[in-house]
Amino acid sequence: MNFVEGLQCVFCGAVHPVRVGNTCPGCGITGILDVRYDYAAIRRVLSRRVLKRRVEQSHWRYRELLPIRANAAIPTLSVGWTPLTPAPGLARHLGVASVFLKDEGRNATGSLKDRASSIGAVKAREKRRDIIACASTGNAASSCAGMAASMGLRSVIFVPERAPEPKVTQLLIFGATVLRVRGSYEDAFQLCQRSCERWGWYNRNSGINPYLVEGKKTAGLEIAEQLGWEPPEWVAVSVGDGCTVAGVWKGFRELRVLGLISRTPRILAVQAAGAAPITTAFFSGEPLQPVEASTLADSIAVGVPRNWKKAVAAVRESGGTMINVEDEAILEAMRYTGRLAGIFAEPAAATAVAGLQRAVTEGIVSRRANAVALVTGNGLKDVQSARAAAGRPFDIAPDGSALEEILRQRKLIP
Amino acid sequence: MNFVEGLQCVFCGAVHPVRVGNTCPGCGITGILDVRYDYAAIRRVLSRRVLKRRVEQSHWRYRELLPIRANAAIPTLSVGWTPLTPAPGLARHLGVASVFLKDEGRNATGSLKDRASSIGAVKAREKRRDIIACASTGNAASSCAGMAASMGLRSVIFVPERAPEPKVTQLLIFGATVLRVRGSYEDAFQLCQRSCERWGWYNRNSGINPYLVEGKKTAGLEIAEQLGWEPPEWVAVSVGDGCTVAGVWKGFRELRVLGLISRTPRILAVQAAGAAPITTAFFSGEPLQPVEASTLADSIAVGVPRNWKKAVAAVRESGGTMINVEDEAILEAMRYTGRLAGIFAEPAAATAVAGLQRAVTEGIVSRRANAVALVTGNGLKDVQSARAAAGRPFDIAPDGSALEEILRQRKLIP
Repeated sequence: MNFVEGLQCVFCGAVHPVRVGNTCPGCGITGILDVRYDYAAIRRVLSRRVLKRRVEQSHWRYRELLPIRANAAIPTLSVGWTPLTPAPGLARHLGVASVFLKDEGRNATGSLKDRASSIGAVKAREKRRDIIACASTGNAASSCAGMAASMGLRSVIFVPERAPEPKVTQLLIFGATVLRVRGSYEDAFQLCQRSCERWGWYNRNSGINPYLVEGKKTAGLEIAEQLGWEPPEWVAVSVGDGCTVAGVWKGFRELRVLGLISRTPRILAVQAAGAAPITTAFFSGEPLQPVEASTLADSIAVGVPRNWKKAVAAVRESGGTMINVEDEAILEAMRYTGRLAGIFAEPAAATAVAGLQRAVTEGIVSRRANAVALVTGNGLKDVQSARAAAGRPFDIAPDGSALEEILRQRKLIP
Repeated sequence: MNFVEGLQCVFCGAVHPVRVGNTCPGCGITGILDVRYDYAAIRRVLSRRVLKRRVEQSHWRYRELLPIRANAAIPTLSVGWTPLTPAPGLARHLGVASVFLKDEGRNATGSLKDRASSIGAVKAREKRRDIIACASTGNAASSCAGMAASMGLRSVIFVPERAPEPKVTQLLIFGATVLRVRGSYEDAFQLCQRSCERWGWYNRNSGINPYLVEGKKTAGLEIAEQLGWEPPEWVAVSVGDGCTVAGVWKGFRELRVLGLISRTPRILAVQAAGAAPITTAFFSGEPLQPVEASTLADSIAVGVPRNWKKAVAAVRESGGTMINVEDEAILEAMRYTGRLAGIFAEPAAATAVAGLQRAVTEGIVSRRANAVALVTGNGLKDVQSARAAAGRPFDIAPDGSALEEILRQRKLIP
């Protein structure tokens, strides 16, 4: 927090002191704020050598670049510093020089959202709030509940009626009070907003809370450091609300500003074809047109993204581009990512890999390129979708009579 | 592999050279072998200081204590070095001085079994086998398939008819050939054994493969190192086959032999009351009597454990004891572990925590004790059971009319 200079509205550009709250006083709810740091001061204290000596195997190793106090209490659950796994078999399959998978499914509650929620939980404590609230069906909610539990905070989660039962289960296990709103996500969101205002709960809705994205940017910081400060040509990230891709890009941009890397990667931002309003806005240059989201990749099934502007700006600034993939390509990517890299990606995570494949086929990503794909969540979170991708086992009798034929068909025996 | 001296039969005590194969030539299939090392030689090269300098954030940092060659190819997926998470809220609830949770659900495929399977995959490559096989419904199978995928090996998994669909899905995603045997686990196991012999596949059945348990012992090594070489008074481990508890204990014993720790923890070995033949054998001193296993903790629902003798010996040698817990106590432990520590444990993992609670209540574990519980697998692997533990969400209308009453009931507002 020592290095935070202020909060800049991404809509009107005005810079405000941190005390203004969650959104731009001038622009209202659409005035999403971006945390600005004193990079000159950070540059004096943060170097490759300093980082190399740090022992924290978590994203708190980048504390100068986070909007928290130096002595802030942090969750007991470790967050970040997830493996960046080489996947040579996958690289051959995709037809590029190398691919690394940033395995965010290894986070405490199984997704990249832990990075954001951990910041939320720290800020809640800093503001002496005992209750943190969130409207979500998915990874944001479970990470919010898990991080709250680990910090001794209570959580209240508003979910829409159609929230899948397994995701609700995870929330309940973390001790959250889960309020299932008979209505849409928007209904749940509005009720959460009103409740936070009324009862003074800490609001973890990333659409409006400017601090959460700062946690997400650590995924970018880690990719650079884990590759010895030589980022790849391309980083593929799936896009729903737009907040994650903007965060990851911010990480790379900051590292260049700080002189820790000399060049930034291009961002390949990938949307599911059935929920791709940001891709449309990216190519049209027009303001975002809401769509009716329809994709099995539920973590990125966002028809009215709140952070589309940040996302479009990030991709453009990186020199990257956007691409859409169909659900069938997403399921296929789940299969070959599992088979060739041993990583079980949830559909939204496999979307990044599918986008990379398509970008190679279309000549957008060169066959000589090194690439990283961000695997944003663990496939175990949505086994139902995986079933559609996975195929079927072979049923055999205990005497093994059908065995040889199956093995021959699978080319396991000659 | 440089430090392996031979393989000792746990049944007759004879020491054999490593070339004998999987089981004792004298005793046959019951003659499980234990890897013996030249500890004097290891002591000369391995010290706290040497380990402190090692950069591997995986269990390969203990390579001198593993049965693999120094230059062996290892999986691209990182294995081990999982967080040891402090859980002060849980410690208060259980009534002990401190509790740390070793979160094995953070492994690549979500369980401690990755430690064993990674050794299996390395050994398979070493023996120039392209196919690795296993009979299992659960974590052993998924870790086998995942590690195989990450090393470019193929996997063949035999599962019994009643194997839960979500676990089969994970196998299929990892590209395994899944053979569902119309019969019991024993039928699947036998067919796997015959197939490995006939087609020369590498056999990853931990009941007979002496190397796998060496991977499991790294959980013990890590607990000691992560606590600054000051192990706790008690380490709670759930027990099914007996292989994991024996492995974890072996880790601590070796560290004492090497002079890296000065005292070892007591092992609290916990079985589900409905599948507790090892506890019975531990207290009776008689050979194991098989039982019909009946518990919701499916990863430890073993009625005919193959490693019971190793397990009993380990617990006795540690000065520890065994205890049983009912399924209701396991579900309760899932709830309070999630709520108080933010960790979603699968039922078999929560069994260790439930055992710790019971042992405190019964005065076996002192209220002044420091304890570690091994959370062997991720709750996301078995959301079905978690549902029974989790309770229900509150259904409310979008206008929030019922909200206040619920919040008051949950003591979230005055």
